Amino acid sequence: MASTDGNLATVYVCITCRRAEDPDAEPRPGALLADATVRAARGSGVAVRRVRCLANCTRGPSAAVRANGGSSSWTYIFGGLDLAAASALVDGARLLAAAADGIMPWRGRPEPLRRGLIARVPPLDFAEEDQP
Amino acid sequence: MASTDGNLATVYVCITCRRAEDPDAEPRPGALLADATVRAARGSGVAVRRVRCLANCTRGPSAAVRANGGSSSWTYIFGGLDLAAASALVDGARLLAAAADGIMPWRGRPEPLRRGLIARVPPLDFAEEDQP
Repeated sequence: MASTDGNLATVYVCITCRRAEDPDAEPRPGALLADATVRAARGSGVAVRRVRCLANCTRGPSAAVRANGGSSSWTYIFGGLDLAAASALVDGARLLAAAADGIMPWRGRPEPLRRGLIARVPPLDFAEEDQP
Repeated sequence: MASTDGNLATVYVCITCRRAEDPDAEPRPGALLADATVRAARGSGVAVRRVRCLANCTRGPSAAVRANGGSSSWTYIFGGLDLAAASALVDGARLLAAAADGIMPWRGRPEPLRRGLIARVPPLDFAEEDQP
């Protein structure tokens, strides 16, 4: 797939994000976070893709993380990120890429990806859970 | 992919969801929403998959919607859903499946999927947006 380019995982950073209290000025905090994440990802095997709007606007800045190399990774959405979260996003992406079950482990997960968790989405090959 | 079974789209309903003010009792509101969505989806071409936790716990009940038949559909996560949202989820899934650009249109989108939008995730083949 064109967007993965053989990388272990991809971080999608919303470049239109700002906090509610931020002025509507350029560059947006999301764009700065994207730049910082690109820098943090250098040499890490993690791709960074800028995206216009992850629809998490009231809880931004936002990013999503997904492992590549298959369709079995969950995708995680995070919010309330600041610039210090750039390296956390890259570390979390690597953690997810190393998880055999496609789930980002809680243990070892960087703090901004714990408190900033918004939601997660099943992989394409997700099979229905057993009924309780 | 095993989970799509030739269906137009898939709705993933969190069966562990409850609202903060709900008692911790079975069946969970999310499980009831899943049952209602299965009924609403009959004959619609939309698959329904039960999932344990979409990590949107403080804003549940939750569901995610993705179109099948390719890797070019965005995935949408919704929260604050009640039983009346079951048919909205199915209608929204069909709307997304019919969208050539993989984006669920706002026009015609059922009301519970407007006010309940939590976030969206790019498709696997997402290409980076142009820089501003």
